[in-house]
Amino acid sequence: LPPSPIITLTTDFGLDDHFVGTIKGVILNIAPEARIVDITHAIEPFDILGGALSIAHSYTYFPSGTIHVVVVDPGVGSQRRPILATTGPHRFVAPDNGVLSLVFEREVRLSVRHITAEHYYQQPVSQTFHARDVFAPVAARLALGVDPGHFGEEVHDFALVSLPRPVENAAGVIAGEVIRVDHFGNLITNITPQDAPFLFLADTPPFQIVVAGQQVSHMRNAYAEGEQGEVFGILGSMGCLEIVANRDSAARILGAGRGSQVRAEPSG
Amino acid sequence: LPPSPIITLTTDFGLDDHFVGTIKGVILNIAPEARIVDITHAIEPFDILGGALSIAHSYTYFPSGTIHVVVVDPGVGSQRRPILATTGPHRFVAPDNGVLSLVFEREVRLSVRHITAEHYYQQPVSQTFHARDVFAPVAARLALGVDPGHFGEEVHDFALVSLPRPVENAAGVIAGEVIRVDHFGNLITNITPQDAPFLFLADTPPFQIVVAGQQVSHMRNAYAEGEQGEVFGILGSMGCLEIVANRDSAARILGAGRGSQVRAEPSG
Amino acid sequence: LPPSPIITLTTDFGLDDHFVGTIKGVILNIAPEARIVDITHAIEPFDILGGALSIAHSYTYFPSGTIHVVVVDPGVGSQRRPILATTGPHRFVAPDNGVLSLVFEREVRLSVRHITAEHYYQQPVSQTFHARDVFAPVAARLALGVDPGHFGEEVHDFALVSLPRPVENAAGVIAGEVIRVDHFGNLITNITPQDAPFLFLADTPPFQIVVAGQQVSHMRNAYAEGEQGEVFGILGSMGCLEIVANRDSAARILGAGRGSQVRAEPSG
Repeated sequence: LPPSPIITLTTDFGLDDHFVGTIKGVILNIAPEARIVDITHAIEPFDILGGALSIAHSYTYFPSGTIHVVVVDPGVGSQRRPILATTGPHRFVAPDNGVLSLVFEREVRLSVRHITAEHYYQQPVSQTFHARDVFAPVAARLALGVDPGHFGEEVHDFALVSLPRPVENAAGVIAGEVIRVDHFGNLITNITPQDAPFLFLADTPPFQIVVAGQQVSHMRNAYAEGEQGEVFGILGSMGCLEIVANRDSAARILGAGRGSQVRAEPSG
Repeated sequence: LPPSPIITLTTDFGLDDHFVGTIKGVILNIAPEARIVDITHAIEPFDILGGALSIAHSYTYFPSGTIHVVVVDPGVGSQRRPILATTGPHRFVAPDNGVLSLVFEREVRLSVRHITAEHYYQQPVSQTFHARDVFAPVAARLALGVDPGHFGEEVHDFALVSLPRPVENAAGVIAGEVIRVDHFGNLITNITPQDAPFLFLADTPPFQIVVAGQQVSHMRNAYAEGEQGEVFGILGSMGCLEIVANRDSAARILGAGRGSQVRAEPSG
Repeated sequence: LPPSPIITLTTDFGLDDHFVGTIKGVILNIAPEARIVDITHAIEPFDILGGALSIAHSYTYFPSGTIHVVVVDPGVGSQRRPILATTGPHRFVAPDNGVLSLVFEREVRLSVRHITAEHYYQQPVSQTFHARDVFAPVAARLALGVDPGHFGEEVHDFALVSLPRPVENAAGVIAGEVIRVDHFGNLITNITPQDAPFLFLADTPPFQIVVAGQQVSHMRNAYAEGEQGEVFGILGSMGCLEIVANRDSAARILGAGRGSQVRAEPSG
């Protein structure tokens, strides 16, 4: 007997209201054996790109067969479509607003369907809480084994949003930005080892990083290698350049945040 | 083999301390197969009515047989009684202070018992943490199949608290109030379609809504239908009039909050 | 068939990012039957003693066989060791930085191992997220039944940190301090009934408590026994003197917090 299916939740609902608990009730009412795992409910309200980042950096760690419900949904109740995406081992249920874009970028075997099978919804369907009335019941039916093909027809014109990409100018300067500030005040940038390989060499050549107008002079391998009060760069767990401090918040020290400019260049 | 029983938790304990984790440990120690679902732990400290609202708007979505632990308990350690309520499909464990009032209002087949079977408690019983020492172990024994009758005698003088109700004056003005502000800044009012049917007609006649002294001119069907910066009314997922904005916080825009007055009247 | 193993999580990761969800994915990918329980993720960033307190006050309530993952880890990626501790019924996975000190103080049958079995890690191992790449997979292998002896050799020079202890001067004054402020604003002190037995007698003799320079005149048995606005003492659920208020925050009323001095003396 295989273990019961896992359903993950990634939303901007917060934990202050009964919303998330209600979604779980709906799922368990339909699929009593489902096991539900919160990825996060602290996406900034209406922040589609924030939701896209959170699911893209976590879903690959879940077992094959996991169903991911991703609801950042400012268009709830409007014409935006509910979609069901399958990518070989993973399945996703979300509004069609780009919140799955960064998943779609990574996946080759991708099928996206417009969910139209309203008989699977929780009735009556509110105009303001489709996580409860549409996405949760659809995820629960998937967990019960309903085939994705039964939820609606495949579509190819699904919405996509893009992370800002760093650009390299003629002088070799990489201009990127902070795309997220984590709980510790680490500044996660959009600059990867592919964008700026010189930063990530075992023996880093001379370089310059400027974040929010301030010079960052060292790349280090671990937070604990930093001196007190020092802000430095590191290869973070999301695979990007992070600007961090040892036991402190780089965001606070630099006064930087999401959208802050990050410039990196070899200076050798 | 039926799936293991579900126990939900609704408290004002927050998530910063080890309290909620400890409660779960106590439950799993007694009923290893129980599955525990958080509804919310962010009820305002000591806010009995807030707890009553959260459980009342979520419990019906859970499967038959679910056990709901609801602990907002400023009287812990005093003479207030612990109670066990059964309503056909659902069971509730809570202090007798009114936190189940809105459940009791909805339920016809209701039995409420004063829990006196101290041999089911976690010993020693602290005077400050009955969720751990009384409510969790009682819920766990229910999950194991102990009959509600074994926990104590039925009582009929249980505590009740009431939501403020809207009133209608001779001129047809409905005077209600904001009973909750959700995570998105939506203002949930106590005005239902029964109180003010003219607001919820497919073809709304002319009306006036005044919230915190400010005019709200439109009812809409979905958040996304609002114009930028506009505050408008909607039928919310809790079945009440909500005052909302599109991708914004109506609470912030209007400077309104819980207790703010809401007046609605037909103006045709 | 025994129920599936329980893995608890205590961290300073917060719930805003995808970190905790990712850890759960890693665990479930290796040990699909594991059941994961959050103790708290709201330890102050890098607060080893805060983490030590949270796990020490909760782990004993969990069933025998539970695996506790405790990650407050400012030294991640440095030479600090990952350790696996077993204490008869409980198992712990943590960095070797003292975060398990208060568990170790309580336990007689204690074995601590340096985890060196890198083939159990999630590859590649980042330098910044060992909860995902080291501690979660080790916990999951334990849940699968891998013997603790397979993870590494026993060590005896593990790190320890200490709670501040109250001191008694020649005049019988007990000088302690606030070691934590809970969600309700209760001030948890490090003074136990053993330190100041006169505070906890059924018939308390005259005494003086001074907290943050302000006089506290009564010990009471329950929060609800306090008068409005009164700050008083109580034996809290953690087995220590707590300075509290009835439906209010003693921390706010007194302007006190972690580290605030607490002096108690018999005045009879």
